[in-house]
Amino acid sequence: MPLTAPLRGVVPPVCTPLDATGEVDTQSLSRLVEHLVGGGVHGLFALGSTSEVAYLTDAQRSTVLETVVRTAAGRVPVLAGVIDATTPRVSDHARVAAGLGADAIVATAPFYTRTHPAEIARHFRRIRENIDLPLFAYDLPVSVHSKLSTSLIRELAEDGTLAGLKDSSGDEGGLRRLIVELGGRGGREEGPAPRFSVLTGSELTVDAALLAGADGVVPGIGNVDPAAYVRLYEAALAGDWTRAAEEQERLVELFGIVDVGPDAEMGRSSSALGSFKGALRLLGVIDCGDTAFPQIQLSAASLALVGRRLHAAGLMPAR
Amino acid sequence: MPLTAPLRGVVPPVCTPLDATGEVDTQSLSRLVEHLVGGGVHGLFALGSTSEVAYLTDAQRSTVLETVVRTAAGRVPVLAGVIDATTPRVSDHARVAAGLGADAIVATAPFYTRTHPAEIARHFRRIRENIDLPLFAYDLPVSVHSKLSTSLIRELAEDGTLAGLKDSSGDEGGLRRLIVELGGRGGREEGPAPRFSVLTGSELTVDAALLAGADGVVPGIGNVDPAAYVRLYEAALAGDWTRAAEEQERLVELFGIVDVGPDAEMGRSSSALGSFKGALRLLGVIDCGDTAFPQIQLSAASLALVGRRLHAAGLMPAR
Amino acid sequence: MPLTAPLRGVVPPVCTPLDATGEVDTQSLSRLVEHLVGGGVHGLFALGSTSEVAYLTDAQRSTVLETVVRTAAGRVPVLAGVIDATTPRVSDHARVAAGLGADAIVATAPFYTRTHPAEIARHFRRIRENIDLPLFAYDLPVSVHSKLSTSLIRELAEDGTLAGLKDSSGDEGGLRRLIVELGGRGGREEGPAPRFSVLTGSELTVDAALLAGADGVVPGIGNVDPAAYVRLYEAALAGDWTRAAEEQERLVELFGIVDVGPDAEMGRSSSALGSFKGALRLLGVIDCGDTAFPQIQLSAASLALVGRRLHAAGLMPAR
Amino acid sequence: MPLTAPLRGVVPPVCTPLDATGEVDTQSLSRLVEHLVGGGVHGLFALGSTSEVAYLTDAQRSTVLETVVRTAAGRVPVLAGVIDATTPRVSDHARVAAGLGADAIVATAPFYTRTHPAEIARHFRRIRENIDLPLFAYDLPVSVHSKLSTSLIRELAEDGTLAGLKDSSGDEGGLRRLIVELGGRGGREEGPAPRFSVLTGSELTVDAALLAGADGVVPGIGNVDPAAYVRLYEAALAGDWTRAAEEQERLVELFGIVDVGPDAEMGRSSSALGSFKGALRLLGVIDCGDTAFPQIQLSAASLALVGRRLHAAGLMPAR
Repeated sequence: MPLTAPLRGVVPPVCTPLDATGEVDTQSLSRLVEHLVGGGVHGLFALGSTSEVAYLTDAQRSTVLETVVRTAAGRVPVLAGVIDATTPRVSDHARVAAGLGADAIVATAPFYTRTHPAEIARHFRRIRENIDLPLFAYDLPVSVHSKLSTSLIRELAEDGTLAGLKDSSGDEGGLRRLIVELGGRGGREEGPAPRFSVLTGSELTVDAALLAGADGVVPGIGNVDPAAYVRLYEAALAGDWTRAAEEQERLVELFGIVDVGPDAEMGRSSSALGSFKGALRLLGVIDCGDTAFPQIQLSAASLALVGRRLHAAGLMPAR
Repeated sequence: MPLTAPLRGVVPPVCTPLDATGEVDTQSLSRLVEHLVGGGVHGLFALGSTSEVAYLTDAQRSTVLETVVRTAAGRVPVLAGVIDATTPRVSDHARVAAGLGADAIVATAPFYTRTHPAEIARHFRRIRENIDLPLFAYDLPVSVHSKLSTSLIRELAEDGTLAGLKDSSGDEGGLRRLIVELGGRGGREEGPAPRFSVLTGSELTVDAALLAGADGVVPGIGNVDPAAYVRLYEAALAGDWTRAAEEQERLVELFGIVDVGPDAEMGRSSSALGSFKGALRLLGVIDCGDTAFPQIQLSAASLALVGRRLHAAGLMPAR
Repeated sequence: MPLTAPLRGVVPPVCTPLDATGEVDTQSLSRLVEHLVGGGVHGLFALGSTSEVAYLTDAQRSTVLETVVRTAAGRVPVLAGVIDATTPRVSDHARVAAGLGADAIVATAPFYTRTHPAEIARHFRRIRENIDLPLFAYDLPVSVHSKLSTSLIRELAEDGTLAGLKDSSGDEGGLRRLIVELGGRGGREEGPAPRFSVLTGSELTVDAALLAGADGVVPGIGNVDPAAYVRLYEAALAGDWTRAAEEQERLVELFGIVDVGPDAEMGRSSSALGSFKGALRLLGVIDCGDTAFPQIQLSAASLALVGRRLHAAGLMPAR
Repeated sequence: MPLTAPLRGVVPPVCTPLDATGEVDTQSLSRLVEHLVGGGVHGLFALGSTSEVAYLTDAQRSTVLETVVRTAAGRVPVLAGVIDATTPRVSDHARVAAGLGADAIVATAPFYTRTHPAEIARHFRRIRENIDLPLFAYDLPVSVHSKLSTSLIRELAEDGTLAGLKDSSGDEGGLRRLIVELGGRGGREEGPAPRFSVLTGSELTVDAALLAGADGVVPGIGNVDPAAYVRLYEAALAGDWTRAAEEQERLVELFGIVDVGPDAEMGRSSSALGSFKGALRLLGVIDCGDTAFPQIQLSAASLALVGRRLHAAGLMPAR
């Protein structure tokens, strides 16, 4: 499903179910894709950070993308993360993604190295030249350790390098400035080319982002409850901001599952990913909730807390 | 005007006008207070970061607070920043502020030193014991270099140590979680004690914060256009979120004045403060737009850009 | 004892003994000064970070400096920290320090605020203009959150603003570059003015710093064992680097006392300060080992560990 | 040349010469290896950060390692960087490196992801289990954004997971503590297993590191002047610390070439790498001094400055 129009709506970063040996469980992954498409989402983001892309070998990345594209079957567009440290390595991933049928690719600025903004601009331009697919910039300072500036994004939006932005910077003020500079809420409709698409990864303030004029959201916890984000999005489209805020508040409470892992024994990232996958297993969507090595797994007690939160949110465990 | 009810609405951090010798210009400060109260604001925050509190000697701080309290004359409550590195020094400032008639005090966590969360809790509790005024926590990691956690704020809210929070952390997701945990939008009304008051310092996303259930805003650029924030706040109270967003967008554009100073010659903080004070001078509210030593002043060219932005925002320069 | 020559040797940052009510214990402080001077140190640094200066009220700061100056009685020069957020506040402290007889003052760059290097240069120049005492720059990014660049230090050394640097940045490579640029080991002797004095605060690599051409050291744990740093310094002066390294290794082991406090219950800074003061109490130098409020105190078990380390280092507890 | 003894001495991180199209120039790389071995170095570190490993595709990495191993021809051991975000991806690189004849591998902690120390320990243990080669931990917080703690390194040294550490953390105090805890200078000789090898990447303080008991150095600028680091190392072995310091000072001055690129147009990392490669071209060792895309190249003026520094250091340009 080529991106002929700007991407809008709910585009979850698809978790990558693994089996007990750490290999990609393609059957569970297909079920997860059906769970998301069935929940009404408007696109799928495979191989993002929530997909544990950094933990997947090249072979595993291909398996994941192949499975997501085949299962989506054109019902919604599939964005593919092409996450690696620098331009040549990202371009290698992007070629593979194009070959496997991705509808768009999503790249970060270089990481591990320290790069000047002028070098980051060259990075995105070269990727766009190399691969004929819409390119989204992925702003994720917590992993990349640099922030894409508003002026850089504008420059790359205006010259057609970027089709959109996935903003997980947490800098909502900066995002607001970007949207205003790009023409504001609704002001970006004109022109022959598809409009630049602003997607927020700040899943706890989606009502706010949509009020500000964002086009959509990439919510990690949308793996668990995609329909709720779809309801939130539709309330916002309808201008019913109170209902949007109510849906958001319910999702904020559900999001509490990310804190079930004790800080003393595992990282916050492992805990959050483990809680998403644990919830998907409790809901019967995937077979095994393990996160990738070397992440430490949630304890049984932590998983029980996840189950309680699911129940409180009215999400019925599988049994 | 004692804070018998939770503080709500627009509470600008009052700039501190200086004369050409670097001394506090009390006449200009009085005019600024009138400008703000006349704009309809609901409170005044003296001696905050936007007031350049860190640059003021103890004598100057007293002059400022005295002037603001006297000019406000009970029409709106006056919050006083009591900014210093640790508990004993903060307590000294707080005693002075109480003596000068502040209605509430605003304190950060310790800075310069590195402090454990348990020590930060002791810090706020001791200040509250020492001074019989409502105490607001000021979360400003960009200056304090630690972030107040949601759990710490909840603990200090629930035991009555804190009357409220001024959140300038930029962590809108964390603020949303706090509001939900405290009972959500409108869910915090019950009980005999004044409700905990959540004020955001994120002046570019105030519509979003109010939608999320924040009680008010402490906007630096509210010095320049207080009436616009009051309109934004009233639109939000009325549930007219589209109008609130429109007011916010206009203020986002006006906020562009903070970028007029070239990064190569002065700090971003000096540039932002200089632009607020430069705008107030152009509007005829204060006599001199200088920021405190050792900050470098905006150039004439930069000031001209401020003037252009004011004009674009429909704010008529004095002549 | 005016600083007519460049300051060299061991200049411990003098701990500030407090009594059980949190007030300065001047008798213990005098005994500590005698302990240090008796250990052969070449200067005293009062009101530095190890002195808990950030926790002391203005009145307490004066008490401390007065006591140190009086007890030193001209036997060694006394440097006074004038630690506050910005130029006007630092200048106020510096005037007091000059009045109390400090031989030199030690100031950081502005903190709490964010300041441009050009503004930092103005800051140091203004302090030097305001107070007629040798001025040392204190580079402590862990507290100040900016790093003094080599080029800035050189500029301020060459124009006579700074008499020296106390480098606690931990950037030994940068310090090496500075020393080489200033003329290298021994290359800074010529000229009529007292040479710029480079003191390292990196107390675990003093042999290395002296080999590189540093003039001296400001060691926190020098409070506990001043004579050992004096032996290290003298070995270095004599070119006996193996003996210098042996003394350093022994001090590295002793320094292990800073880790006795469990991270889960107190900050690392509180633990380190608590271990220094706890050791001084065990050695009978001061009466009470408490650190300033709101720091949490070392447990009895942690203090016992301090005692064991003292014993292993051949330092005989008082009884 | 298998590592049957602890690795000691000068082990430069070998630059990766590229041709004008960005491909690996194997002839230049062979000449560089001869330049280094001819300079007397004790080992070679291929595919490290200075080798621009993060910019090389998998195919290019293999070409580089193959060329270095073939040219070294057993005269000195070859360490291979296996740099990637997580354990499975690192293991893939490590298998390739083993197949190409590396004598040891060098891995960082996970990056891009955020990982708990317990997860980092699992990471190194799994790599060691997967690949039967000595494993060095590479501590490079500037790229990896986490610091390997002294206690973690000790644990992994003592259980045989790690053969050594390449410390580029800049934390010389921490390194000193590690060396003392591992038995100190010379105290680590006993036992049947090869001793743990501590290599510093802090190329400006190598005399100091050797005085402290480090085993060797991995100096980026050792590409340009390997013989000088060998002289420094031999002076230290001979206990002639004054001569060691003199050699170090000369290298500190030469190191000034890393600053020739103006900050306004390129990153500091690009500037430093560009200056090393530019110097190698001026010396006639490699044919083209270009750094990998998207790094911006040094200007002709900057290259001229590099040439002047080479000349001042007595290094004769090729013509």
